[in-house]
Amino acid sequence: MVNATQDRRIRLGMVGGGQGAFIGAVHRIAARLDDEYELCAGALSSDPERAMASAQEVGLAADRSYGSYEEMVAGESAREGGIEAVAIVTPNHSHYAIAKAFLAAGIHVICDKPMTVTVEEAESLQAAARDAGRILAVTYNYTGYPMVRQAQAMIERGDLGAIRVVQVQYAQDWLSEPIESDGQKQAAWRTDPAKSGAGGCIGDIGTHAYHLACFVTGLELEALCADLSAFVDGRRLDDNAHLLLRFTSGAKGMLWASQVAVGNENNLRLSVYGDKGGLAWRQQQPNELTFTTLGETPRIITRGSPAATDATLSGTRIPAGHPEGYLEAFATIYREVAAAIRTARDGKAVDINALFPTGADGKAGVAFVEAAVRSSAAGCAWVEL
Amino acid sequence: MVNATQDRRIRLGMVGGGQGAFIGAVHRIAARLDDEYELCAGALSSDPERAMASAQEVGLAADRSYGSYEEMVAGESAREGGIEAVAIVTPNHSHYAIAKAFLAAGIHVICDKPMTVTVEEAESLQAAARDAGRILAVTYNYTGYPMVRQAQAMIERGDLGAIRVVQVQYAQDWLSEPIESDGQKQAAWRTDPAKSGAGGCIGDIGTHAYHLACFVTGLELEALCADLSAFVDGRRLDDNAHLLLRFTSGAKGMLWASQVAVGNENNLRLSVYGDKGGLAWRQQQPNELTFTTLGETPRIITRGSPAATDATLSGTRIPAGHPEGYLEAFATIYREVAAAIRTARDGKAVDINALFPTGADGKAGVAFVEAAVRSSAAGCAWVEL
Amino acid sequence: MVNATQDRRIRLGMVGGGQGAFIGAVHRIAARLDDEYELCAGALSSDPERAMASAQEVGLAADRSYGSYEEMVAGESAREGGIEAVAIVTPNHSHYAIAKAFLAAGIHVICDKPMTVTVEEAESLQAAARDAGRILAVTYNYTGYPMVRQAQAMIERGDLGAIRVVQVQYAQDWLSEPIESDGQKQAAWRTDPAKSGAGGCIGDIGTHAYHLACFVTGLELEALCADLSAFVDGRRLDDNAHLLLRFTSGAKGMLWASQVAVGNENNLRLSVYGDKGGLAWRQQQPNELTFTTLGETPRIITRGSPAATDATLSGTRIPAGHPEGYLEAFATIYREVAAAIRTARDGKAVDINALFPTGADGKAGVAFVEAAVRSSAAGCAWVEL
Amino acid sequence: MVNATQDRRIRLGMVGGGQGAFIGAVHRIAARLDDEYELCAGALSSDPERAMASAQEVGLAADRSYGSYEEMVAGESAREGGIEAVAIVTPNHSHYAIAKAFLAAGIHVICDKPMTVTVEEAESLQAAARDAGRILAVTYNYTGYPMVRQAQAMIERGDLGAIRVVQVQYAQDWLSEPIESDGQKQAAWRTDPAKSGAGGCIGDIGTHAYHLACFVTGLELEALCADLSAFVDGRRLDDNAHLLLRFTSGAKGMLWASQVAVGNENNLRLSVYGDKGGLAWRQQQPNELTFTTLGETPRIITRGSPAATDATLSGTRIPAGHPEGYLEAFATIYREVAAAIRTARDGKAVDINALFPTGADGKAGVAFVEAAVRSSAAGCAWVEL
Repeated sequence: MVNATQDRRIRLGMVGGGQGAFIGAVHRIAARLDDEYELCAGALSSDPERAMASAQEVGLAADRSYGSYEEMVAGESAREGGIEAVAIVTPNHSHYAIAKAFLAAGIHVICDKPMTVTVEEAESLQAAARDAGRILAVTYNYTGYPMVRQAQAMIERGDLGAIRVVQVQYAQDWLSEPIESDGQKQAAWRTDPAKSGAGGCIGDIGTHAYHLACFVTGLELEALCADLSAFVDGRRLDDNAHLLLRFTSGAKGMLWASQVAVGNENNLRLSVYGDKGGLAWRQQQPNELTFTTLGETPRIITRGSPAATDATLSGTRIPAGHPEGYLEAFATIYREVAAAIRTARDGKAVDINALFPTGADGKAGVAFVEAAVRSSAAGCAWVEL
Repeated sequence: MVNATQDRRIRLGMVGGGQGAFIGAVHRIAARLDDEYELCAGALSSDPERAMASAQEVGLAADRSYGSYEEMVAGESAREGGIEAVAIVTPNHSHYAIAKAFLAAGIHVICDKPMTVTVEEAESLQAAARDAGRILAVTYNYTGYPMVRQAQAMIERGDLGAIRVVQVQYAQDWLSEPIESDGQKQAAWRTDPAKSGAGGCIGDIGTHAYHLACFVTGLELEALCADLSAFVDGRRLDDNAHLLLRFTSGAKGMLWASQVAVGNENNLRLSVYGDKGGLAWRQQQPNELTFTTLGETPRIITRGSPAATDATLSGTRIPAGHPEGYLEAFATIYREVAAAIRTARDGKAVDINALFPTGADGKAGVAFVEAAVRSSAAGCAWVEL
Repeated sequence: MVNATQDRRIRLGMVGGGQGAFIGAVHRIAARLDDEYELCAGALSSDPERAMASAQEVGLAADRSYGSYEEMVAGESAREGGIEAVAIVTPNHSHYAIAKAFLAAGIHVICDKPMTVTVEEAESLQAAARDAGRILAVTYNYTGYPMVRQAQAMIERGDLGAIRVVQVQYAQDWLSEPIESDGQKQAAWRTDPAKSGAGGCIGDIGTHAYHLACFVTGLELEALCADLSAFVDGRRLDDNAHLLLRFTSGAKGMLWASQVAVGNENNLRLSVYGDKGGLAWRQQQPNELTFTTLGETPRIITRGSPAATDATLSGTRIPAGHPEGYLEAFATIYREVAAAIRTARDGKAVDINALFPTGADGKAGVAFVEAAVRSSAAGCAWVEL
Repeated sequence: MVNATQDRRIRLGMVGGGQGAFIGAVHRIAARLDDEYELCAGALSSDPERAMASAQEVGLAADRSYGSYEEMVAGESAREGGIEAVAIVTPNHSHYAIAKAFLAAGIHVICDKPMTVTVEEAESLQAAARDAGRILAVTYNYTGYPMVRQAQAMIERGDLGAIRVVQVQYAQDWLSEPIESDGQKQAAWRTDPAKSGAGGCIGDIGTHAYHLACFVTGLELEALCADLSAFVDGRRLDDNAHLLLRFTSGAKGMLWASQVAVGNENNLRLSVYGDKGGLAWRQQQPNELTFTTLGETPRIITRGSPAATDATLSGTRIPAGHPEGYLEAFATIYREVAAAIRTARDGKAVDINALFPTGADGKAGVAFVEAAVRSSAAGCAWVEL
């Protein structure tokens, strides 16, 4: 929806996300939901025809629909009122070069996860963002949920005491069969090392679980022991990952990610236990957080709870009992990035204490994948991070 | 978010929904979510100062922020590129006059519920829309949920057989205390007969439950027996409603609506039983539908289910397991209205078989409230509709 | 299981409950579970051969297996060490004569529900028990659940404040088809007015729901408005009951009982709302009670909760988290009756403040069924109790 | 409850389980529930006074209440009509000697878990049982739940295809604080290596989880990698266990056991994924099993489901919708042991294909604990079984 006074909105471009790509549409809705962005330009597909058709579909002007990201950087940089930020929603292996190019042109980057394929690339992107004074955000979108924010705030203020145990899982079942052989495009690139990097399931969804656990607990991973499996015949990347975790604080944990767990659509769950309390959250019923203070009766916290923190409430748009979902959580990340971009617009230093995931989170995710792959290859040896 | 090619979007105005009003923001997000509308004009408050401040906040041009709906009708009608549709989100009693004025000016109307205060007004609006060849939509938003569409489609195709029993409830607790006396604005007008009409809880949320039950089952109410109560001292309208229902088909049902049910945030639930099967849905976990064929094992249907109908899938934006919520359901209504408006744009007759709620639904809701109030006043006598 | 010192145990007889009867075995397990009773005698079937075979199966001595309840009364009365109590688990219409005979012989009675077919019979039984100084217990077993006791105790001590609304339902689906025509014995007598009395579903399970609601809230029903239906073709008694309730305190409620609600096995649920709090319980997950204090976060109370009352804990045998079920709740009723019988053994007056359901509850249940049938026959008129 | 014809019942003795011990009462109820046993003798406490008081409380004859298990073996062996079976419910370290003594006397043994402290002891007991031709049963009671039997039967008949992933957890919170220092008796021996053996949490509840996973899947563990922790200061045994599992079939899994997971009472859960389907079960809602065939809609299987197998139904006493719990599952194990004892009574060989857990399961549990302790001590190295 468009309003008349438009300078307020941030001019956004997109690379990838053309017809047939699920995540591009999600990014566009997320950007639109809080009326903070204007989509102005795109290189929506590596296939020029599809790029143009897609651009028309989403309402881009013909002269701002580009055949490649390189043309787009050039075109938008040259233009008065060119884009201020770009959303990168291509397969993993291409994130690095694209992000680098836009940062070099002084354009903020919102990049899908995992941010890059190697830690070196990740560090290089962080440096590029720092040098350019631009924002590098990574869409670990699940941490945008109000109840995840609530959990984070409660742990930060000590409601759970010292954390002892962290259990996290992300279970799906859509890769239970070798659908990559049947030309399913989403499956094809995700199971192809050349496009996904060395991690399959561990990179695609394991990193979400990892980021969620670290975001909520504030803990830092010290070492991991990973057993990665490819259960489907002929699959080239892992479709199931079992990990033991040790955090620097002495806390321990487990992470399970699977794309062959029949009966699970998108079953991301986290539970955290400290010496004073415990909590549990699951993505498929995201509006509730179960919390127990040691020795007290378990409580079901919602956005309407008197226990809801300011952080929780600021990340919400509607009253409690009116469920928010995946798109709203994603939009919250976009909204927070928008606030940071406005700060940059005003010439101020970008807030590095933002809750939205940044290049540091992006790099941590890539390091996590690398460590897991290394551990598993070494017969599930412990690997330090 | 704004894209370059804008003629495609429908030019929308809004009456009501200024600062402090919850539902106005919901309508704006719903309109924006699928990129089908452009908010161009508004009379956002009956208080001129608040109207202007609100307009600025949502990005309206100063010359299209009006001090009253009458000015807005006049201004937009006179203008090249004036609004094509208006969203009316004011208290109930004012819907009628406002809707009438816009329809008369050839502007499509999207009206909050209950549509009017009396059946006569409702019929008058229906006639006005018919005469003007314009759309009159009513935002019974809960029927926009994908799983509600799924339930409707399953019953329509006979999965439940002949319906016998319909149980519906809508329970909240925010009016458990006399907060209208403390200046809570939302509570004040909702408990004031001059603004809400003769129904309190029965009009505010009972009509949602009623519409949901009729939408899903396709049944027509024949008679009802209502026991309306005001449990909070000094409250002038009902805050709890107990109803027995009889449908023309011979099916029977119960409806419970309450705003004093402590522990319920927005607990709208429906269950329907036929001679071949039964189903249940609840708004606070909207992405699941429980369905049982007589003699078989109960199933949990989601958008990802092979049982999901085309209607279900067309009303969804993201894969199963990624929860959609209240705003998406609301947006689906807006999207469907947009499709109808486009048909009208093209000079074609508006589709009266649309799934979105229209004036007929609006009138049915008002007739339901009137009958319930009459029944209760007559000592819970049975009243025919 | 048998221990050596046996005088401690109460000598129990049973009428009905032979092969093929579900509830007889339940009573026997319930009596056995806490080691309070010894089953010594029985007239387990009206069919003499089946009676003898059943007696052998449950381990009765041949000379204490009787062909009729009359013989049993005579035989046990004449005998040194005859039974002290009898469990009556026959179809409804026969309860009265049997109970009367045993009470007249000075034998305590534990009777299945509904206690009798008419209120007159119920009053006559109450008088008989009073005159004989014997216990008359009725197995409204659902009030034996620990969390039901918890709810009762919390309301009694004021945790919910003044009760406003009571919602209760008992939904099953086993009579969705006319299985009584296919010789299903349980269905046959339950749908036969000559054996069940004037109420079908309302008597079989509606009375359980009614007793549960009154037990937990302590409220007294003033009037009801009932719409009873027989949805299955040819069925002679109701299989679905919709009721509005008014209590003497001013509280209001709804009761739904159904045996044609496809997908419901034994879905008994209660929720109660007062001006200070609300609670909800359901039989299919009986070890949890949801409780909300107005303005606070909802809590999940279990037997392990610090909120658990003494009454709750006294009705439980194992630690929290180890689920108790239907048989344990039933056994709690038996255990409490045993305690009362011991009091009587000692020559003391029987405790009339016991939590187990007595003749007064039995009569209330019958009066409830009569009123519902009368209301429905009068076109759902309001009927006072 | 005692019936007249008693030879049918198995004469049972008990060692341990006196006043203050939770599990003794559970065994007694389990034995009593199906009327298969008669408790005749006991050495209920190592403290003679407590032993006598406890014996009186449970109704044992004074001359069959013994001061020690040695006296009991001697007394009962010498006696006409001495016990046929004994339930051993003492702390872990004493199981071996007691079981050995009773087996040597030709008395069947029902032993609590873990069966012994070392694998050598376990093998020795197995040999003793074999030599004596007596039953050695171990009360891994959770596999007595009807829905666990259902899961086992479904996997055995191929409903899940080849198993890929097994996730099992057993979370409690009662040891979140050092209550062993405050004289809590249950905590004291469970955290004392001299009484519990080398495993704390891993032995107390981890073995239940392990047995459940193997029972349901039929898989055999090949190797494990364990990270055992004692989070509570000063605790001498693990209170949290994280394990990676590899099965001989190529399946992989995770096991988490914890007694410091605040908010978990007795949260035992299992989920299993194969190439054709997946299922999930949790002990705190034991009457439901979630099952999904790949590509179909998830189903909720109960005892009333047409999908329920004969094995499921044979393990149940009441209709679906009437919840069974922990005691019923425990009683099922006792009932199956009773059937085996009757076979032995008749002089036939004992059925080694019984579903109840035997010495082999007992030994497997002890080997599992040993392997886990060894792995953890070696820095979480992989250890083969």
